[in-house]
Amino acid sequence: MTNTHTKLTNLAGPEVPSFTQQEFERRVERARELMTLHRLDGLVLTSEANIEYLAGFVTQFAWTTPSRPWYFVVPRIGDAAAVIPEIGITNWLETSWCRNIQTWPSPRPDDEGLTLLTPLLLGIPGQFGRIGFEIGPESRMGMPVRDFLTVRDALSPRQIDDCTLLMAELRAVKSTAGTDHIRHICRIAGETFAHVPDFVKVGDSERDICRKFAADLLLRGADKVPYTSIGTGQGGYSSIIMGPTDRGVAAGDVLIIDTGAKYGGYFCDFDRNFSFGTPSDEVVRIHDVLWLATEAGIAAARPGNTAADVFLAQARVLEEAGIPVGNVGRFGHGLGKLITEYPSNAPGDTTVLKPGMVLTIEPSAMYGDYIMAHEEDILITEGDPELLTPRASREITRIG
Amino acid sequence: MTNTHTKLTNLAGPEVPSFTQQEFERRVERARELMTLHRLDGLVLTSEANIEYLAGFVTQFAWTTPSRPWYFVVPRIGDAAAVIPEIGITNWLETSWCRNIQTWPSPRPDDEGLTLLTPLLLGIPGQFGRIGFEIGPESRMGMPVRDFLTVRDALSPRQIDDCTLLMAELRAVKSTAGTDHIRHICRIAGETFAHVPDFVKVGDSERDICRKFAADLLLRGADKVPYTSIGTGQGGYSSIIMGPTDRGVAAGDVLIIDTGAKYGGYFCDFDRNFSFGTPSDEVVRIHDVLWLATEAGIAAARPGNTAADVFLAQARVLEEAGIPVGNVGRFGHGLGKLITEYPSNAPGDTTVLKPGMVLTIEPSAMYGDYIMAHEEDILITEGDPELLTPRASREITRIG
Repeated sequence: MTNTHTKLTNLAGPEVPSFTQQEFERRVERARELMTLHRLDGLVLTSEANIEYLAGFVTQFAWTTPSRPWYFVVPRIGDAAAVIPEIGITNWLETSWCRNIQTWPSPRPDDEGLTLLTPLLLGIPGQFGRIGFEIGPESRMGMPVRDFLTVRDALSPRQIDDCTLLMAELRAVKSTAGTDHIRHICRIAGETFAHVPDFVKVGDSERDICRKFAADLLLRGADKVPYTSIGTGQGGYSSIIMGPTDRGVAAGDVLIIDTGAKYGGYFCDFDRNFSFGTPSDEVVRIHDVLWLATEAGIAAARPGNTAADVFLAQARVLEEAGIPVGNVGRFGHGLGKLITEYPSNAPGDTTVLKPGMVLTIEPSAMYGDYIMAHEEDILITEGDPELLTPRASREITRIG
Repeated sequence: MTNTHTKLTNLAGPEVPSFTQQEFERRVERARELMTLHRLDGLVLTSEANIEYLAGFVTQFAWTTPSRPWYFVVPRIGDAAAVIPEIGITNWLETSWCRNIQTWPSPRPDDEGLTLLTPLLLGIPGQFGRIGFEIGPESRMGMPVRDFLTVRDALSPRQIDDCTLLMAELRAVKSTAGTDHIRHICRIAGETFAHVPDFVKVGDSERDICRKFAADLLLRGADKVPYTSIGTGQGGYSSIIMGPTDRGVAAGDVLIIDTGAKYGGYFCDFDRNFSFGTPSDEVVRIHDVLWLATEAGIAAARPGNTAADVFLAQARVLEEAGIPVGNVGRFGHGLGKLITEYPSNAPGDTTVLKPGMVLTIEPSAMYGDYIMAHEEDILITEGDPELLTPRASREITRIG
C-alpha cells in the first residue's frame, strides 16, 4: 500500500502553475467593464466559484460548512474588500491578493458580519444606485437569506440586482492559465478511465467501483472528486445521474461512470461506457450513434455558432438514426469553476460561441427502458475545437 | 495497483444498513410536531442535508451543480411532495419513499419549477399562515434567491419564516441508525490516520499528502471526502483550516490533518497531529495540554450540561496551563449530516445536551506564531459519552 500510494501520486506530471497577480488584475478590470454595462455599482460575492475567481482565495473550509459566511466586495470604483471570519485570516493572506480585510469572530449568531458588510456597501460610490448579488438563474447564495434580506433593506433606496449572469459571462471565456488547469484534470481523468478495466471486476458493488475510481483520480493528481455517478444494469442502465448503490456488477452489464473531478479550482466533466463481456447489438448500435452525435457536436462547436447549434447538430444524428433523445434537457454545457456553467447546448440558447469557452459535448439517447450518454470536453478556438479529453473509442470498451 | 485497489476497498467491514421506511415516518412525524411548536403550516426544503434526512433522496447530482433546484415540501397536514427536475425521476424513485412527485424539464431558465411549486404551496392547509424556508442562521438555500422572492410574493399574505432551526433541532438527536453511520465513518478515518506514518514521508507536498490521505479513506470505505485540511511548518503550523499548498514537508515539521469524510450521508470530523522526528519541548507540552483539555471536554459532555459547559471545561484546562485559546470561536460543535451542526461549544450557547446528540470536542491553543488543535467525536448517552473516534495518543505521533 505504501508503495502504491507513493508511486501513483502525480503520474499526471508536475503541478500546473497557479494564477498570477496580473491574471487577477485582468479579471477585476473586466468585471468592472461588465459592471458598467450591467449598470451595477458593485458586486457582493459569496460563492466559492466567484470569490476564488476574483479574489484568488482558495480554501476548503469556507465551502464545506454553512456555519460562517464569507464576503468579497468589488466596487466598480475603489478598492475591493474581504469581510471574513477571523479564523480565515491566515488562509486569506496566503492565497488572495486582496489586503483590504475586515474580520469578526464567527460563529456569532446575532451578527455574522453584517455590521461590517453593511457600512462597507453603503460607502460604495453610487452612480447607478444598484448593487449586484448572486440571486439569478443557476445561482446558490453563500449566505443565509434572512441576512441578505436585512442587508437589502439597509441599502434601500439602492436596488439589489443579480450579478450571477455577469459573473457567468466573465468566467465563460477562459484564459490560457484557466484552460491549462482544465486540460490537466481532463488528462488525469482520462488516465483513470483508461485503467478502469484494470481495477473494476464482476462482483464489485457500484459503491466500491466509485470509491476505487475516485481514489485512482486522487492518486494521479486530482485535488477533489466531488462527483462520480454510476449506472449499471443488464443490457443497459436507466439513469445517468445516480449515486452508487450496493448493486454488484455482473457479466452482461453495461456500466457508465461520469465524473466531475477538480484541479486547482477547475473541473473536468465527462463519462465513459463499459460492457462486461460482449455487448448486445443494440448497445453496440446506440454507442456508435452517440459517438457520431458527439463528432457532430464537436464539429459544430465553432466561433459564431450558438450553443443551440451544437445541440441541433447532435440531435440531428440521433433523429436520423431514429433514436429518441434523453430526458437531460440539453446536450452539454459550459465548464470551468463549476461543473456546469453557461451556456446550455439546448434549443433556444442563442449564446454565441467564442474562442476560450470550454464546453461539454454530451448527447444522450433513450432505448427501451434504458438511457445512454457520451461526453467529451472541448475548448473553442478560432478554428477546430481542441479536444481536452482523450476521445472515447468508437466501440464500447469491454471489461473481462 | 489493481491488487491494492481490490484488497483495500472496504477493510472497514460490510456496509451499514440504510434507513428504514419506519425511520423516515418517525422523522416526518417529529417534524410535524415541531411545525406545530414553531407555528408553521409547512416546510419547503432545498438543501442536501434536509431533503436527504426527510425524503431519503440520495444523489450526488443535485448538489454538485447549481443548474437545477430540487424541492421537497412537507405540509403539517397532508402529503409530502417532491418538485424535481425530470432528469431526476429515476434517482428519486430508487432512493426516496415519497411517491407524490411533480417534474419539469430543467434547465428551463424562465420557470425552474415555480409554476409547479407555487400552487402546491398555496394548497397547503393554513392554520398559522406561515411557511418555513431555510433562511435562518448557518443556512444555505438550495434555490436561486430571486426565485425565492418570487414565491414569497406569490404566497402573500402568508408569511415566510425560518425552518433552519427547526430542522437543526430535528436532526440534532440521532437515531441508532444515524449513530451507526457516524461510528462507521469515524472508524474508517481512524484507520486511515493510523496508517499516515506508512504513506507520508519527508519531501511529500501538502497537496500530495491530502491526495494520498483522501484516497486511503475511499479505499477503506468512505463514500466521499469533502474536507481534508492540512497544516505543516517547522515547529508548528499557523492555520488549522488551510487547503493544501505545494510546500514539501521536512524533518522538524509539525503536521495536522483534519478531515470531514462521509458515509451514507453522515460525516466524521476529527484531526490528528504528527511530528517529523523529535518534537520540540513546546510542541510536546501544547499537545499534552490539548489532550487533557479534550479529556475535560469529553467528561463535561453529559445530559443536562450545556454546550457552553463543554467549552468552559476545555478552556479551564488551557487557562490553568497559561495557554491562550485559538481564534476558532468555539471548541467543537454538533456533527451529523453536516460537518458542523448545532450546537456550538462556545460561551453563551445554552443548548442543553441530550442523549443521542453527536458532538466534536475540539480545543485549540495559540503558542508563539502557531496554533494547535485536537478533535474527537462523541455520542452523548445517559452516562459517560461514547467515544466514536479512536482516541488520539497523549503523545504526538512521530513520523520517521
